[in-house]
Amino acid sequence: MFCLPPKSKHIPQATIKRLATYVQVLEGLARDNVDVVASKVLAEACGVQGAQLRKDLAYFGEFGIRGVGYQVKNLIHAITSSLGVDHEWPLVLMGVGNLGKAMINHIGYHAHGFRIQAIFDSDPFKIGEKVHGFCVLPPEQIQDIVALYKISIGIITTPPERTQNAAECFVEAGISAILNFSSVRIKVPEYVHVQYVDFFRHLYSLVFDLVREQTQAIMNDEGEG
Amino acid sequence: MFCLPPKSKHIPQATIKRLATYVQVLEGLARDNVDVVASKVLAEACGVQGAQLRKDLAYFGEFGIRGVGYQVKNLIHAITSSLGVDHEWPLVLMGVGNLGKAMINHIGYHAHGFRIQAIFDSDPFKIGEKVHGFCVLPPEQIQDIVALYKISIGIITTPPERTQNAAECFVEAGISAILNFSSVRIKVPEYVHVQYVDFFRHLYSLVFDLVREQTQAIMNDEGEG
Repeated sequence: MFCLPPKSKHIPQATIKRLATYVQVLEGLARDNVDVVASKVLAEACGVQGAQLRKDLAYFGEFGIRGVGYQVKNLIHAITSSLGVDHEWPLVLMGVGNLGKAMINHIGYHAHGFRIQAIFDSDPFKIGEKVHGFCVLPPEQIQDIVALYKISIGIITTPPERTQNAAECFVEAGISAILNFSSVRIKVPEYVHVQYVDFFRHLYSLVFDLVREQTQAIMNDEGEG
Repeated sequence: MFCLPPKSKHIPQATIKRLATYVQVLEGLARDNVDVVASKVLAEACGVQGAQLRKDLAYFGEFGIRGVGYQVKNLIHAITSSLGVDHEWPLVLMGVGNLGKAMINHIGYHAHGFRIQAIFDSDPFKIGEKVHGFCVLPPEQIQDIVALYKISIGIITTPPERTQNAAECFVEAGISAILNFSSVRIKVPEYVHVQYVDFFRHLYSLVFDLVREQTQAIMNDEGEG
């Protein structure tokens, strides 16, 4: 059981997502034995404005030492404990195709507060296969694994046509938070939290930025003409 | 060359990202031969509130027919043409591991306004390999391909240690927009647009939701005790 410090209860979603970046960058600094990092340097490494960084970190109290910077390890601990990722969350994953394999490799036994506990696929030809040290299990075993390891979070990396089915398997087994890599929207009970990793959203943003620039360039040309 | 309608110039990033979801859902409806969709049904399928959907779509003019709904094909055309994805954008991809293969399979020759033009890897053992119909090319060929097909967007799916190098290859070749699947922040000139697909951000959001619920439950118990 975890308890959030009162101030952090109302942290906006956008801040939470930036905090994930800060933790990853800070962990990189810790690995390189950096003890203290200047606010400006940290902001730049994270790709945000300095003011944004300071505002985001203010949710967790006072960590910066004026004129010096942030103490890397203290800051990691403060953020991860406030967010509940100072211990490892076990995950289950359904769908061991290329995307699933990439995720298993990426998270594996330990990454930024998470670890894969078990992987599943409904394809009988995949069951029993070893993937980065994990054995592919049949969906019938999800319920037992989820109960045994008290797992709350499931990752879906199936093809679109199997996404809804995977979500239902997870929910029946007791999963209450789903990370869905498929662009297919899933129907789950209201108490289940869902996050979509939809890279088309990012491609659309890029295209929009490019088109906006072109439009601006045309308008400038016309203004000069 | 494209030109945005004046009203759509100031569309917020968050709206653009939701529009990507709307287009994918609408394209699914079009495939199922649905001509008209009620605002409420569309909002639900996209996982947003009805008011949010109407507000987002208002940037593109008046498409809804009161009491009837949105005309699916007209709405797809309006959104995609405003965003500049009514024609296909060719992409290059660097890093043909599991994640790269998943993306090549997902986008391939045609998906939601994008198509893969060429794929690259710096591993000499991978060069020449066929992946979902594409031949893996060496990074030395990026420049020619980008110039020949007038490509603006590059996708990076390399391991973290090769991410910065991939970004530099792209920028030197003339790429001005990068979709980066690695959690490593890249350093590129200011004119280059970068979007990060960082699924840890989504995992953090899920954990935060779960912990917030637990905290709330504990506080309720204490209130009753």
